[in-house]
Amino acid sequence: MRKRPLILISNDDGIDAPGIYALVNEIKKIGEVFVAAPDKQQSAVGHAITMNYPLRAQKFYKNGKFFGYAIDGTPADAVKLAVGSLLKQKPDLLISGINHGANTAVSIIYSGTVSAATEGTFLGIPSIAVSLTTYGKPDFRYAAKFTKKLAQTVLKKGIPAGTLLNVNVPPIPEKEIKGVKITRQSKAKWNDWFETRKDPNNKEYYWLTGRLVDEEKSDDTDLWAVEHNYVSITPIQYDLTDYKLLGVLKKWKLDY
Amino acid sequence: MRKRPLILISNDDGIDAPGIYALVNEIKKIGEVFVAAPDKQQSAVGHAITMNYPLRAQKFYKNGKFFGYAIDGTPADAVKLAVGSLLKQKPDLLISGINHGANTAVSIIYSGTVSAATEGTFLGIPSIAVSLTTYGKPDFRYAAKFTKKLAQTVLKKGIPAGTLLNVNVPPIPEKEIKGVKITRQSKAKWNDWFETRKDPNNKEYYWLTGRLVDEEKSDDTDLWAVEHNYVSITPIQYDLTDYKLLGVLKKWKLDY
Repeated sequence: MRKRPLILISNDDGIDAPGIYALVNEIKKIGEVFVAAPDKQQSAVGHAITMNYPLRAQKFYKNGKFFGYAIDGTPADAVKLAVGSLLKQKPDLLISGINHGANTAVSIIYSGTVSAATEGTFLGIPSIAVSLTTYGKPDFRYAAKFTKKLAQTVLKKGIPAGTLLNVNVPPIPEKEIKGVKITRQSKAKWNDWFETRKDPNNKEYYWLTGRLVDEEKSDDTDLWAVEHNYVSITPIQYDLTDYKLLGVLKKWKLDY
Repeated sequence: MRKRPLILISNDDGIDAPGIYALVNEIKKIGEVFVAAPDKQQSAVGHAITMNYPLRAQKFYKNGKFFGYAIDGTPADAVKLAVGSLLKQKPDLLISGINHGANTAVSIIYSGTVSAATEGTFLGIPSIAVSLTTYGKPDFRYAAKFTKKLAQTVLKKGIPAGTLLNVNVPPIPEKEIKGVKITRQSKAKWNDWFETRKDPNNKEYYWLTGRLVDEEKSDDTDLWAVEHNYVSITPIQYDLTDYKLLGVLKKWKLDY
């Protein structure tokens, strides 16, 4: 009999977040789950890693039961440490999430949730990042069930090395979900700015605020899919080279 | 007469680092320089932004003269705050660096230096990231002079929206530089691991260590160029979609 797959779970909302709890409860139905996640919220950390300080891993208990390891670092740190030191064998799959909030368009660059999956990808593990696209009160149940089914498909079919799946699930009841769209990353951008405020000592400080503005009208993007009640799956890779520009730059006279 | 261009300079080694000082000293020969950089070292922060805390900007003086603004955040924060709040007009160019250490291959994903340029790109500013590829004692003079000339070229020719130039300069005297190569991002990977140590109270902690391993033999990568005494310029863009995989995924039966 084939042994159950080993599935590493991480996130960026922290090990005590409801999203990772909902995910673990579903995923443990299909495999051995190992949790290694930041000990506190790490949103918008990008792909940060900790090099100048040591890391620690604390056992974390939930409702009196061992849940996983809380790492005093970033999502990428947690994955790296789990695979490199805490686990005896390489996981068959990594799932990061379920994030409370969308990771679509350019937010992918800032996303701690995606960065945990990125680190898994670098380590040669098929990896999935999952986000629920609401900042309101979340219900993670459908997203967790969907992820379980997607995990089974990925365990069977694999993902080419170097690519991860970035999943965004709309925050609506299961019966309103229209289906799944394979999408590209939207080119929508953050229109953000700083509010300038004064502290009680009359010194200025700045607080970031803003919103994502979609100028594309195309129906093949991650953003379009979730706004139209589809689950979005975007394959993400890490060669950032702008190949179209190579030829142009080669014509510049740069041998100063 | 055309007015001098406004050039925003940032980095991730912190406003007091010698690399940004060398860069500013060259760049002010060709434009008005405005410096906004993290108040302390921010290497390997990835594309982190600060949303849950306010930011502050302190005037920073060097050798008794006003040098720029020290921001208590990440490189991306510094750029965002400079463009959104500290500057009255949009810069004509952004330069991030000069970083002490290479930003080639997958290190681009972790790089704070590149992330400052990424933020500039998002804000519609032609942006350049510059790194000196040594971890030993650095001499930034040639890299600074090269960057000045590249900056002049970019001010004249522009860079297509959404793309930045990632420059890596080998740490050798000017006369040993063989020229400039337009390169792609190498697929070399970090082979890294954690050293497990014990603190004075006998508790375990973990410290990251490792090196970049290049399995590619190709002569068109950033890593190859700097190892062979060329300045490397890689055009970088932020659509991470793995377009080759879209068709494959569309054939998966995912409408669970």
